[in-house]
Amino acid sequence: MAKEYNVAILGATGAVGSRMREQLEQSDIPVKNLKLLATERSAGQKRSFRNKDYTVQVAEPDSFNDVDLVLSSAGGSVSKKLLPEAVRRGAVAVDNTSYFRMDENVPLVVPEINADVLKNHKGIVSDPNCSTIQMVVALKPVFDKFGLDRVIVSSYQAASGAGQSAWNELEQQARDYLEGKEMKASILPVKGDKNHYPLAFNLLPQIDVFEDGGYTHEEWKMIHETKKIFFNDMNSSKIKVTATSVRVPVPVGHGETVYFEVADKNKASVEGIQSAIAAGKGLILQDDPKNQLYPQPINAAGKRDTFVGRIRADQENPGSFWMWVVADNLLKGAAWNAVQIAEELVKRDLVSVPDPEESYQLFREK
Amino acid sequence: MAKEYNVAILGATGAVGSRMREQLEQSDIPVKNLKLLATERSAGQKRSFRNKDYTVQVAEPDSFNDVDLVLSSAGGSVSKKLLPEAVRRGAVAVDNTSYFRMDENVPLVVPEINADVLKNHKGIVSDPNCSTIQMVVALKPVFDKFGLDRVIVSSYQAASGAGQSAWNELEQQARDYLEGKEMKASILPVKGDKNHYPLAFNLLPQIDVFEDGGYTHEEWKMIHETKKIFFNDMNSSKIKVTATSVRVPVPVGHGETVYFEVADKNKASVEGIQSAIAAGKGLILQDDPKNQLYPQPINAAGKRDTFVGRIRADQENPGSFWMWVVADNLLKGAAWNAVQIAEELVKRDLVSVPDPEESYQLFREK
Repeated sequence: MAKEYNVAILGATGAVGSRMREQLEQSDIPVKNLKLLATERSAGQKRSFRNKDYTVQVAEPDSFNDVDLVLSSAGGSVSKKLLPEAVRRGAVAVDNTSYFRMDENVPLVVPEINADVLKNHKGIVSDPNCSTIQMVVALKPVFDKFGLDRVIVSSYQAASGAGQSAWNELEQQARDYLEGKEMKASILPVKGDKNHYPLAFNLLPQIDVFEDGGYTHEEWKMIHETKKIFFNDMNSSKIKVTATSVRVPVPVGHGETVYFEVADKNKASVEGIQSAIAAGKGLILQDDPKNQLYPQPINAAGKRDTFVGRIRADQENPGSFWMWVVADNLLKGAAWNAVQIAEELVKRDLVSVPDPEESYQLFREK
Repeated sequence: MAKEYNVAILGATGAVGSRMREQLEQSDIPVKNLKLLATERSAGQKRSFRNKDYTVQVAEPDSFNDVDLVLSSAGGSVSKKLLPEAVRRGAVAVDNTSYFRMDENVPLVVPEINADVLKNHKGIVSDPNCSTIQMVVALKPVFDKFGLDRVIVSSYQAASGAGQSAWNELEQQARDYLEGKEMKASILPVKGDKNHYPLAFNLLPQIDVFEDGGYTHEEWKMIHETKKIFFNDMNSSKIKVTATSVRVPVPVGHGETVYFEVADKNKASVEGIQSAIAAGKGLILQDDPKNQLYPQPINAAGKRDTFVGRIRADQENPGSFWMWVVADNLLKGAAWNAVQIAEELVKRDLVSVPDPEESYQLFREK
């Protein structure tokens, strides 16, 4: 009989956590028992999974006794505190927060690209940022076929990337605006930052907090996660990446204009890129201007794939191209990519922590 | 006594036409008589101007008898048909449509940049595209101080850029979406194109029709108008420009992520660019990440200025920078820029057509 796993979802009632449960339900992973973990506020709620009801419990260190696999999306501070405890108890965690992503002991994985680095995991595997994932999945076939020197990306990011409460806030603001009332803001652009601004019928060029140099942390993530995913080095100079991230009044589905310069400038062509993407893993080419076919968030929402269109050459810079990339930020950008990682861990028989106590010392709060 | 002018507004009841009347009202231009011209559908409506009521009339060739100055925003086909007739009757037209912009006999003017080319006009002056204007105004002080080799722009364009009916459609779609009804689309992305898609809570990577090479006509305009404005040559190779234009669910106020490479790479700095923009004409620097100050469409709507923020260096490509530019697409992007051009024509005593019959032959439908 195939191995069965005890799985815990940490942050089970959030926008991503709910989708982790749905994606896990549809996956091939044999689940023996499921634990739904959240804060006290959600404890006691019920959720169904594979025809059985489960009650949401308060997450605490001992929640992970007898757990094999954790899917985590409860915020960085929760990951920081609880994932070392999970690992200490022998559970492997796939973490959707940014907290461990740049830790050199933590693989940062997009299965279509670098599933092989999973073999080095020490108990925690990180799920990259939503806006990074869809971009690197779309770039991967180009990278393989023509090489990549440089990426310049502008993002059009949906409200749900900031959680269910930001999504709700956007819809309430839109209602108020249409009724001629004043829009109220208490979450976006960044819940923990000082000022809040309406997103409905507006654009907010701030996602996450500002870093030195004027970049937001979201932009920083797009740059350094891309380097780590492609070259296993967050500061690799093998690819140059720069980004501007903007929040747009869309509930689900990030858009990105990705401008890229290939290495093999003589060989690359629009047709060559289109055929590489059409054949790429996890990708759907939607690129037929004559019939006005191009990716749109309302069509990508609810889908696991990443959609690519508007591929064209910069007519003055040979070897440089544009593409327009859209994906469901809660699925490929978060829950589905996490469950894909879990599937790879199962397939490769890697759902165990080689030395739990050593890993605990490595990852625990210092 | 100062000269007074008979002014006509063509397309007077549209989103831009209404604002042309308001901006003209607030300008210093001495208006003797005002003619409000539109289609039969709007004829008979009344509008006030400087405390006097005017009745909208049907636009026809003889409407321009005794007119000195025309502000035109009734669509390319109307400009094509009626502006040669206006010029033949001795009127100077400032045209907001794209129809004559690339005509070598027509100056394409952003007064902060190239008002001097007005002296060569032959009766028609073109107002550039909304998304071009705000970008070139923001780039002008950088161009003057450090030179400009290359621009890579992604736009976030408001619904009103496609007219009042597109704006109304966006709001109706938003209402339907929030009530759980199906969204209907009959205007966007392009009224005359085959398919129509909802914009509310969505992104549409198509503005205007597709051209050869996969670019939309909007993107083509951003590229070639920028070259013509800076170098009086729509195909100038002195600056490389490429663009992706995306329609976003915002009523008024275009956003743009502008990535640019300066010529003088050693001299340029973030501080140098900030101070140039702060001192630039028609520009407001809003760039204080610590206090979350950056341009937003809801703050730019109704203002004549172009707002610039998020200025920062590409950390891997010396001499390359980002900025985020927002302006009211109906004002600086259209009506206000047109009235500014009219003010310059008045100031320079250029409100006359040197040879009306010759100009008529030059511009008439062939």
